[in-house]
Amino acid sequence: MSGNTFGNLFAVTNFGESHGPAIGCVIDGCPPGLALSEADIQPDLDRRRPGTSRHVTQRQEADAVQILSGVYQGQTTGTPIALLIPNTDQRSKDYGNLLDTFRPGHADYTYLHKYGLRDPRGGGRSSARLTAPMVAAGAVAKKWLAQQYGTRFQGCLTQVGEMAIGFESWSHVAHNPFFAPLADVSALEAYMDGLRRAGDSCGARLRICASGVPVGLGQPLFDKLDADIAWAMMGINAVKGVEIGAGFASVAQRGSMHGDSLTPTGFATNNAGGVLGGISTGQDIEVSIAIKPTSSITTPRASIDVHGQPVEVVTKGRHDPCVGLRAAPIAEAMLALVVIEHALRQRAQCADVAVATPDIARA
Amino acid sequence: MSGNTFGNLFAVTNFGESHGPAIGCVIDGCPPGLALSEADIQPDLDRRRPGTSRHVTQRQEADAVQILSGVYQGQTTGTPIALLIPNTDQRSKDYGNLLDTFRPGHADYTYLHKYGLRDPRGGGRSSARLTAPMVAAGAVAKKWLAQQYGTRFQGCLTQVGEMAIGFESWSHVAHNPFFAPLADVSALEAYMDGLRRAGDSCGARLRICASGVPVGLGQPLFDKLDADIAWAMMGINAVKGVEIGAGFASVAQRGSMHGDSLTPTGFATNNAGGVLGGISTGQDIEVSIAIKPTSSITTPRASIDVHGQPVEVVTKGRHDPCVGLRAAPIAEAMLALVVIEHALRQRAQCADVAVATPDIARA
Amino acid sequence: MSGNTFGNLFAVTNFGESHGPAIGCVIDGCPPGLALSEADIQPDLDRRRPGTSRHVTQRQEADAVQILSGVYQGQTTGTPIALLIPNTDQRSKDYGNLLDTFRPGHADYTYLHKYGLRDPRGGGRSSARLTAPMVAAGAVAKKWLAQQYGTRFQGCLTQVGEMAIGFESWSHVAHNPFFAPLADVSALEAYMDGLRRAGDSCGARLRICASGVPVGLGQPLFDKLDADIAWAMMGINAVKGVEIGAGFASVAQRGSMHGDSLTPTGFATNNAGGVLGGISTGQDIEVSIAIKPTSSITTPRASIDVHGQPVEVVTKGRHDPCVGLRAAPIAEAMLALVVIEHALRQRAQCADVAVATPDIARA
Amino acid sequence: MSGNTFGNLFAVTNFGESHGPAIGCVIDGCPPGLALSEADIQPDLDRRRPGTSRHVTQRQEADAVQILSGVYQGQTTGTPIALLIPNTDQRSKDYGNLLDTFRPGHADYTYLHKYGLRDPRGGGRSSARLTAPMVAAGAVAKKWLAQQYGTRFQGCLTQVGEMAIGFESWSHVAHNPFFAPLADVSALEAYMDGLRRAGDSCGARLRICASGVPVGLGQPLFDKLDADIAWAMMGINAVKGVEIGAGFASVAQRGSMHGDSLTPTGFATNNAGGVLGGISTGQDIEVSIAIKPTSSITTPRASIDVHGQPVEVVTKGRHDPCVGLRAAPIAEAMLALVVIEHALRQRAQCADVAVATPDIARA
Repeated sequence: MSGNTFGNLFAVTNFGESHGPAIGCVIDGCPPGLALSEADIQPDLDRRRPGTSRHVTQRQEADAVQILSGVYQGQTTGTPIALLIPNTDQRSKDYGNLLDTFRPGHADYTYLHKYGLRDPRGGGRSSARLTAPMVAAGAVAKKWLAQQYGTRFQGCLTQVGEMAIGFESWSHVAHNPFFAPLADVSALEAYMDGLRRAGDSCGARLRICASGVPVGLGQPLFDKLDADIAWAMMGINAVKGVEIGAGFASVAQRGSMHGDSLTPTGFATNNAGGVLGGISTGQDIEVSIAIKPTSSITTPRASIDVHGQPVEVVTKGRHDPCVGLRAAPIAEAMLALVVIEHALRQRAQCADVAVATPDIARA
Repeated sequence: MSGNTFGNLFAVTNFGESHGPAIGCVIDGCPPGLALSEADIQPDLDRRRPGTSRHVTQRQEADAVQILSGVYQGQTTGTPIALLIPNTDQRSKDYGNLLDTFRPGHADYTYLHKYGLRDPRGGGRSSARLTAPMVAAGAVAKKWLAQQYGTRFQGCLTQVGEMAIGFESWSHVAHNPFFAPLADVSALEAYMDGLRRAGDSCGARLRICASGVPVGLGQPLFDKLDADIAWAMMGINAVKGVEIGAGFASVAQRGSMHGDSLTPTGFATNNAGGVLGGISTGQDIEVSIAIKPTSSITTPRASIDVHGQPVEVVTKGRHDPCVGLRAAPIAEAMLALVVIEHALRQRAQCADVAVATPDIARA
Repeated sequence: MSGNTFGNLFAVTNFGESHGPAIGCVIDGCPPGLALSEADIQPDLDRRRPGTSRHVTQRQEADAVQILSGVYQGQTTGTPIALLIPNTDQRSKDYGNLLDTFRPGHADYTYLHKYGLRDPRGGGRSSARLTAPMVAAGAVAKKWLAQQYGTRFQGCLTQVGEMAIGFESWSHVAHNPFFAPLADVSALEAYMDGLRRAGDSCGARLRICASGVPVGLGQPLFDKLDADIAWAMMGINAVKGVEIGAGFASVAQRGSMHGDSLTPTGFATNNAGGVLGGISTGQDIEVSIAIKPTSSITTPRASIDVHGQPVEVVTKGRHDPCVGLRAAPIAEAMLALVVIEHALRQRAQCADVAVATPDIARA
Repeated sequence: MSGNTFGNLFAVTNFGESHGPAIGCVIDGCPPGLALSEADIQPDLDRRRPGTSRHVTQRQEADAVQILSGVYQGQTTGTPIALLIPNTDQRSKDYGNLLDTFRPGHADYTYLHKYGLRDPRGGGRSSARLTAPMVAAGAVAKKWLAQQYGTRFQGCLTQVGEMAIGFESWSHVAHNPFFAPLADVSALEAYMDGLRRAGDSCGARLRICASGVPVGLGQPLFDKLDADIAWAMMGINAVKGVEIGAGFASVAQRGSMHGDSLTPTGFATNNAGGVLGGISTGQDIEVSIAIKPTSSITTPRASIDVHGQPVEVVTKGRHDPCVGLRAAPIAEAMLALVVIEHALRQRAQCADVAVATPDIARA
């Protein structure tokens, strides 16, 4: 409950600031005997890292992860895995002028009122840079889940600003800088170029999907699988909405249409998004999230300073015009961390359960 | 993390089943010295309880709460407050025939696969009846927060099925069985009557609002105030989507429009929904949730039995055709429980913080 | 962490006061499918309950437990098990005069300073009566552990006041009101009769032993098995000291003598008390606890009242002259609750571990 | 509950192994605005570090701590404080031969059975080296508590092997390598020299004392202040017993003698050790712990190898002949971490409590 630890049985404690010497995390509770090296973690960090196209922040960070503990002779030992990611491209002077003013849409105001002081360098603790250690931890979770159950996590962009993005194929996602499931992203490139020239930012919507999740994960009342997913997703910087399965569309549905029929060979549909009563059905877990436009923009905004006086704020420095563009690996990681937590809980309480009833999602 | 306890500092442990002898909860961590009796709790339970109009389930439950502990001479002592709500109108025979079949959209299938067995009486533990103890606990939280900060919680219906409901005034909400902010609910009545005659169900959308929340509540990374709200809301039975502030609409917004400008007399807008960087701004906290249509309907559905054989399912018994109609007090209670948890955490870590900067939301 | 919940995966939330309407607990996380009825729990409550001999308090309580939830058709469902124990022999008038004074050695003074008010009836929340729900929860843990691993818990008295009690056999423990491992307890009876006549009280030492604990339970750093045992034991009312294995005697031992040699057929000795590096060895877990003399005695004591003025205090009402006499079932229950918690944690993290090395404690 | 995190509100997550690249911890929940630099932490690390006299292990570690996050311009920001301590004097070859055998009294056997594999280098995770990050975290806690309440922590040696050590004065403790409260430690030096020549090890007993602890810290049932202290102390490597106040001596006391009388100017005695009913009285908290003899000795011992075959084990490498000699700063730190956790909890729940009754411990 300390605010910087995610999970209980697979607990990830995150530390660092955007412009401090390093960021990182400690994973506690990883099952022993998992083959693990930096090479298992780096690819997901590379998918998330900045500076990889003209459409994202130009900060250059290798995000090279080091395993400090918890691995011996290439295997996890069951003890804490400390992961360190040095910061290498801090430019704190970019932010010096922000100490006395509040950026609209930014956490400056709330941090100051909460703590009485704040680290302004690159947003300090509120920076999206702190998602990097979660991506690293998520890579460990993904590897274990893949080996144990064949679980697989994928995320893609479904909307940017007012532009909806059709779904063509998961196979396209890795081949463009937008995580878009499209063969041709030229319209997207043009859209982002226009936005950047305008000195403005926009929001995004993403779809995240986990396949191969075992039936039975989640808990009935408060730690429902979908509740924990909502918590994990809303905890990602800039997220303002979360849907599971049919989401807000279910409001206008009839019960006779929404409830997914069961057949001997599987569920007929997946309005549930893979969760019923807070517990996984074994179908794909389908999540959709809304990401707000970046608050750091070069367009001048009306605001106040720390004395309550009106000021005009322009944010310089290096920023993503649409943070949603890099969010897919982050959301995948958060989903993987939720799933492994519940997989371990399920082993704890229900390891002995044997059910004669067929698992239709695997039929 | 045990799955049936909500919160850490103001921890509410929920127990019971829909058709067992009683349901209830234990509140641990309530500040001492709060004047409290059953009369403080019963009104919210009465707002939620079934049988109060033809539009909801006809199960008759007084939902009369008893305080078993934690109060001495009319004041909380700081020790656990046990609340008991006897069940009085169980009709378990209504559900006997459901033991061998799975209702589409219901938790039957997932409970069986998780636990290896299930209590079919009225949905057992998965029943929305288990929200009653949360409403009771929420009433205690509301009272403390009102006294301490003047915080106030309100919820209303904003959509039923495909019918959008305009917002006229909070003052109407208490005067119709729909929690609708409308003077005239005849159209709603007609809609619900039609739905009931059709033997079907529909979804709903609700708005929940907390005013008078102090600035500074929430934590930066994982226990963000909005993340915990999303967790609490998605944990309510049948909820499939959660939005904070502009929510999914923020996807199509520009940063220059979304970010709420600060002025010496307050924020100009509230796209943030009262939370920036996971921490409360002092503005109203604005939440919107999507509730799916009830899965228990009299329309026949295709399904399977526990042996995996195809069957047709018709759910009899007493059910709400739209569970969203009674959800406002539930969602208010869950929001209150999140806010009190963070209020206590803030006292723990930051009780000494003094800020010279003006609190513009109270300006 | 809320102070009234014991455990995380097998979490027991305790509520009630000595003289309220009822006491009880909610067990969250019990594995499903365990055959359970009140008859599994009542025997341990009967071993602990007051009024069974002239040597303990004469308060008459049947301590009849009711299962309110979590069991369906005689099996645990995996959802919360609420246990209720009505109070039937309250005599709150006995304590009315205590509201303004502080009994030496009692929690009166600290409760008032912590909470600003207190429930004086029978010690309110600080009463040893609140151990009854733990004995009930412990009985559930014991049953599951016995079925799963053959684990067995036993406790006995090893010292009363200055009188050491030799160990003859566990088989005697059930046949005298002192939980003494002796065939002939006449000396003990005479000792206790003298103490009661003197209007005084004395302390006690107990030994608690768990056999059949699997190797590998516990965690390396903070949730060491022995640390959690120390926590559980020191949390029992009046306990002032805890030892594992050789305990304080290990101070004067040499390493060449203390370290238990391993042989192909088992450990040669058990100075470790069944725990090495915080993890169970598979040997018997051996615990010893010190219980202070009851603070409620009829001998007049110097004290102060709530205004800070000197007063003389005499405690009337019904009290145990040596609370240690009834403590064996309590300590057994607490130990069982620690062991089941770690057994479930071990399944969560290490369910897949297979070791070729022989388990010598089972050799 | 993840096993490597200590505390909830002031949560310290520990990572690293004896012979990995670094050890460290992350402190989450530290109040903001505390002036903090490495210079506040290093002195306690220096008190604990090895190689400072001939009586302890000759491993040379500067134990130079680095603050990686959570401090900005010399003040804590309220976000996680990551502390890193590089390992500089690993000699893993010393331990290579231990991989296939189990040292009597060591965690080798239990680690292998728990995790299926183990890191043998210097005991890996079970090394007492992992107490260094706790000493560092404790220094932060000590500083905050000293500023807030004037709390002060002191520890000293009271027995080594069979040699009892009289208490002369706290002022001597800092002036000898034994943390002995004696002006003349020549007898101790001779004792330790003899032990080392014998190739054997011995146990120790320590007293730890906290003065200036506010009245009212602790919780009534499970998170009693003394229970949490017992948990923290028993969690220190090699501790086998814990006493609060009169401890095991209270068994032979009468109630008329044990219960500390209250007077208008304070408690007459302190058999309680500063805790009544699990809550601090405001008196000194008095703790005594038993530390077993080091298991790593050069005297040959009978044991088995990983195949279950008998072997003789001789432990070379660098070891303390009495780990108790360096344990005082460790135990002080653990006590400080318990006290700050409860101080923050008390603010959370009871910040508003005002009591007219005098605080006699401060009279």
